[in-house]
Amino acid sequence: MDAHGPLCVGIDPHQQLVESWGLPYTLAGVERFAMTCVEAFGGQVACVKPQSAFFEVFGSRGVALLERVQSGLRQAGTLTILDVKRGDIGSTMTAYAEAFLGKDRSDAVDAITVSPYLGYGSLRPALDLAAATGRGVFVLALTSNPEGASVQHARGAGGRSVAGEVVAGAAADNAAARESGRLGSVGLVVGATVGTAVRDLGLDLTSMGGPLLAPGVGAQGGTAESLRQVFGEALPQVLASSSREVLSAGPDVPVLREAARRTGRQMRALVALSG
Amino acid sequence: MDAHGPLCVGIDPHQQLVESWGLPYTLAGVERFAMTCVEAFGGQVACVKPQSAFFEVFGSRGVALLERVQSGLRQAGTLTILDVKRGDIGSTMTAYAEAFLGKDRSDAVDAITVSPYLGYGSLRPALDLAAATGRGVFVLALTSNPEGASVQHARGAGGRSVAGEVVAGAAADNAAARESGRLGSVGLVVGATVGTAVRDLGLDLTSMGGPLLAPGVGAQGGTAESLRQVFGEALPQVLASSSREVLSAGPDVPVLREAARRTGRQMRALVALSG
Repeated sequence: MDAHGPLCVGIDPHQQLVESWGLPYTLAGVERFAMTCVEAFGGQVACVKPQSAFFEVFGSRGVALLERVQSGLRQAGTLTILDVKRGDIGSTMTAYAEAFLGKDRSDAVDAITVSPYLGYGSLRPALDLAAATGRGVFVLALTSNPEGASVQHARGAGGRSVAGEVVAGAAADNAAARESGRLGSVGLVVGATVGTAVRDLGLDLTSMGGPLLAPGVGAQGGTAESLRQVFGEALPQVLASSSREVLSAGPDVPVLREAARRTGRQMRALVALSG
Repeated sequence: MDAHGPLCVGIDPHQQLVESWGLPYTLAGVERFAMTCVEAFGGQVACVKPQSAFFEVFGSRGVALLERVQSGLRQAGTLTILDVKRGDIGSTMTAYAEAFLGKDRSDAVDAITVSPYLGYGSLRPALDLAAATGRGVFVLALTSNPEGASVQHARGAGGRSVAGEVVAGAAADNAAARESGRLGSVGLVVGATVGTAVRDLGLDLTSMGGPLLAPGVGAQGGTAESLRQVFGEALPQVLASSSREVLSAGPDVPVLREAARRTGRQMRALVALSG
């Protein structure tokens, strides 16, 4: 993040976007799209976030392509957050954690997204494996979609919101790292367009002590102003994720790279202003 | 369910179980385990539920094996519920739905599990695709793990619990099917060991009008009595899922098949008693 600014560029090869690059929406077309992204962004941005669903839709051959994307990004020295939103319990959660964060895997990623519908504590195998391997998890906390509030704003017996429980869990897991002045291995996903929800729910994202992945910057409506409104003093922890705005500049590698640089500069300026 | 009783047998090849069959915990060992399950259960039980995580842990080659499992079960005429617990929004949720429920896929399954942390409405692409293709989704509602209540019992602004919102959403989607005397395409996952939670939260599982997938029967502690306590008058909608109790009878095909039949008979007797 110091070298390249707080921008995470998504690789979201959905049909409309792939076709807008003049490519067929086939496995071969998606491969061309994804490997162009690896070429354009590898070594150029802080972080790249492939969306697993757009590879899984092509079955095991799509997952094999995703592994090649991950290897390519790793070779280029770029951090990879794999957006998989897995969530389960016990030995099943352990298997998901091993699948993406296992220490001996050649195709491991630097972090994954996870979903806490089964409770923050159900994610323990992934939280612990990430800490043990120097990797990370981003737990869904507050999402921007209109249906998200029905779950995330709901309040438990103690009066704390569901999102608040997730923030508290992450804060506890990050406490040791925070005391030594580092960001912890447990990050949160908080949408760039959730408006005043962080404040309304009384969430303390600064003390949470981990990185904040903020999807929705750019084409989905998130702006510098909305980031400031959502995150306030926690802005220096934010890794802003933009997919469509950068990807729609394709398919030329230099143009894609310039779009990522431009968006990255905007994000860096914003975070600097907040300091 | 009429022919084979309301039992869904899981295929959960985690390390301990695979090794207990005298197999190595490698892709080849898991393949032997999984294809033995296909041979033992295909055409013999109402439904088989492979757990995706135990295949994904072997990367794209594991996913390719899972596709062979799905094809084998389909050829044997056995319903397959793929336990993937996917959940996302927009075009991403659409891609997950297409990946598993798409109408032109040779490896499509009959149903998947989905996770509503982003709100029941975020699952719309999967709900609609399932209805259009005659397939199904099972939405996580109430899970048995101790951490689940922190999310699922929390109450929204209108006083309804998160699980209650999920039940209401499913009831609305199943209304047309219910009026014509059928179960709808939207099922729910409700753990066999959640005790009095369904009653405590005031959930109406009968009027919900869809099938109820109940994991945790057998080795995880769910018994006939606990099923009766949890589901009451909704018992005829229950598809009880058992993994470890049946699978630990392996690796011999006739013994596995007999274990599934015995557990299936127990479930059928229970449901008949409730009628």
